[in-house]
Amino acid sequence: MVTKAGARTVLFSEPPSISTWANAVSKKESEGPIGKKFDIIELDPTFGQKSWEKAESAMISATLMKLLEKAEIKAEDVDCVFAGDLINQCTSSTYALRDYKIPMFGVYSACATMAETIALASLTVDSKVAKRAVAITSSHFCTAERQFRFPLEYGGVRPLESQWTATASGAVLIEKTKTAPFIRGFSIGVIEDKGVKDAGNMGAAMAPAAASVIKAFFEDTKKSPSEFDLIITGDLGYIGSQLLLSLMKMEGIDIEKEHSDCGLMLYDRKRQEVSSGGSGCGCSAAVLTSVLLPSVQKGRLKNILFVATGALLSPMSVQQKESVPGTAHLIWLSTEPNDNN
Amino acid sequence: MVTKAGARTVLFSEPPSISTWANAVSKKESEGPIGKKFDIIELDPTFGQKSWEKAESAMISATLMKLLEKAEIKAEDVDCVFAGDLINQCTSSTYALRDYKIPMFGVYSACATMAETIALASLTVDSKVAKRAVAITSSHFCTAERQFRFPLEYGGVRPLESQWTATASGAVLIEKTKTAPFIRGFSIGVIEDKGVKDAGNMGAAMAPAAASVIKAFFEDTKKSPSEFDLIITGDLGYIGSQLLLSLMKMEGIDIEKEHSDCGLMLYDRKRQEVSSGGSGCGCSAAVLTSVLLPSVQKGRLKNILFVATGALLSPMSVQQKESVPGTAHLIWLSTEPNDNN
Repeated sequence: MVTKAGARTVLFSEPPSISTWANAVSKKESEGPIGKKFDIIELDPTFGQKSWEKAESAMISATLMKLLEKAEIKAEDVDCVFAGDLINQCTSSTYALRDYKIPMFGVYSACATMAETIALASLTVDSKVAKRAVAITSSHFCTAERQFRFPLEYGGVRPLESQWTATASGAVLIEKTKTAPFIRGFSIGVIEDKGVKDAGNMGAAMAPAAASVIKAFFEDTKKSPSEFDLIITGDLGYIGSQLLLSLMKMEGIDIEKEHSDCGLMLYDRKRQEVSSGGSGCGCSAAVLTSVLLPSVQKGRLKNILFVATGALLSPMSVQQKESVPGTAHLIWLSTEPNDNN
Repeated sequence: MVTKAGARTVLFSEPPSISTWANAVSKKESEGPIGKKFDIIELDPTFGQKSWEKAESAMISATLMKLLEKAEIKAEDVDCVFAGDLINQCTSSTYALRDYKIPMFGVYSACATMAETIALASLTVDSKVAKRAVAITSSHFCTAERQFRFPLEYGGVRPLESQWTATASGAVLIEKTKTAPFIRGFSIGVIEDKGVKDAGNMGAAMAPAAASVIKAFFEDTKKSPSEFDLIITGDLGYIGSQLLLSLMKMEGIDIEKEHSDCGLMLYDRKRQEVSSGGSGCGCSAAVLTSVLLPSVQKGRLKNILFVATGALLSPMSVQQKESVPGTAHLIWLSTEPNDNN
C-alpha cells in the first residue's frame, strides 16, 4: 500500500525488497576503487560484438542472465521489466531484451534511469501487478561518445569539467520478501533547467534537479539528513557535487556530511583520467549493485537516499543551441521495513 | 486495487477514469476524415518555431495547456506526468515539459507510447500515488522524416508500404471519478521480432507484437472478441492490419469484425497520399482523444481495446542492418466500471 507523503514523495507501508542484484562492467571500471566488487568483468569492451551498440546490448543481456542465475529463476518468472539507456530510441536495451519475452516498459530519464526503473518497478510489485519485477539499465563509453560527442577515432580533447561515461550495466530484482534492502519509497523528479548550455558540463546541468528532489523528499517526509547514513547522487561528478552542496546550503539544508556521488566512487580521478568523474546510466547502476545494496543488506548502511541524476539533452538539442535540462529521481533504501525498529 | 488476471494482463477492481482529453494536429490531419474533431488545428507546421523539434515541443505544450484548461486545473494540480516521443532522447517531450514543474516519468515505446503512458499513469492513480496523472505523447512528420528517413529537402520517394507520421499530439487526464470512460485494465507488451529488415514497412514489423498482446488479453481474461465493440490498433496501416488479421486467424481468434486501425482512420488513403496509412505516437493519441474517448463516454462504444503499436528501431539499428523489433500495449476502455451492469 502506498502512503502518499507529500507532493512528490511516495512511501510504502509494506515496502517491497530488492532481493537480488547483478552488474557487468569493462576494463576501466574494473581498475577503479571498487573494481573487485563486480559480478561480470569483460576486459574486451566490444563484448565480442561487431558494433559498440551491439556490445552494449550484449552487456545488458549478460547482466540480466547473471541476475536470473543469482535469483535462481527463469526469464518467464519475471512479470515485467523496466529498462532504458542513453542511446537514441533506447536501442541498446530494446535489442538486448527482445530475446527474453518479458513484458517490458521502456523508460527514458538519461542517467537517472536506474532510479526511475526502480521506482516504477517497486510500484508494480507493491500494487500486485507483478510478483517479480526487474529494473535494468546500462551505458557504454563508446556508444555515448559517438552519439553525444565525437567518434573515438577523432581523438577529441576532453575538457576538465567533462565526465567519463561508464561502460557498465546494473539490474535489480524487486519482490515482496521479509529481508533488506527494503524500498521504503521514492520521490519523483521534476525537470530543472537553469540555462547551462555547455553539454560538456553535465554535473552543473544536473545539480539543480538533484537539489530539488532531495529538498522535496525532506519537506514531504519531515525527515532530516542526519537520519540517513548516505545521500548518494548518481553522477554529478566533482563539479556537480560541489554545486549540489552549495545549492542545498542556500536552501538551508546541509548534506555535506552524508553526501557522496557514484561518479566519484567508480573511478579514481587522480589515477584514471576521468576529468570530473564517472557518468552514464550504468555508473549509478553499477555502484548501487556492487557497493550500496550489499551494505544496506548487511546493515553497514541503515538508511540511504539513492538519487540518480540525468541530463536530458540530445545531440540535436545541443546542435540547436538549447540549454541542458536535468532531472533526478530519489529512492529511499533501508535495512528496516519501517521506522518502528 | 489490482486484480491480476494472468501473465500479462492487469485489471482494476475500481477502475480509474479518463476525465479529460485534448489534442493538437496540423493541416494534413485537419483535412482527413476526422479532421473536424480536433481541439487545436495549427495550419503552420512550424508552430511558430525555428526548428521542427521545437515545433513538436510547442505542439505538446499547447496540448497540455488545452488539457489543463478543459479540466479547469493548473499544472501544479497534476501529481505526475508520463511522457515520451519518437525523437532521440525524447527531446520533444522533455523540452516541452521543462516549464511545467510536474513530477515526470519519461517513457519510450515508439508509437506504442500512448498506451504505455496510460497504463502506468492509471496504475499511479489506482495505487494512490497520484490523484491526477497525465499521459501525453506526440509525433511530427518533419522531425520523424529527418531522424528516421531523409531530410525533407532531399525529396525521397516514399515506398507504397511506408506510413505517414502524423503531426499530432494527444493527452489524457486520469483520476478517480464515477464517470466513463473507465480504464478497466491493460496488457503489457512483449517485444516481437520476426526478422523484418525493411524499416519502410513498419506495419509488418509491428503486427506480430499486436497479435501477441491481443491474444494474451483474451487468454488472461477468458473474454472473446465479440464482447468488444472495437479492437483498434495504433498504427499498423493497411498492410500491417491485413497481417494482424491473418496472424490472429492462425491463432484461432477472428477479430475481423471488431478490428480497425488508427492509421487508417486519421487520413483518407485514397485522397491524401499516405501510402499504407498514418503512424507516429501522435496518430493513435489523436484518434483516441478525438473519436474513441468521446464515443465511450457517450456509450456509442461500450467496450474497446486500444492497442497502440510501436516499431522499436533507431536510425542506428537500421544502419547496422538490424531487424525491426515491435511492441504493443493494450488498454481496455469501457462505459462501465465492471461487468455487473
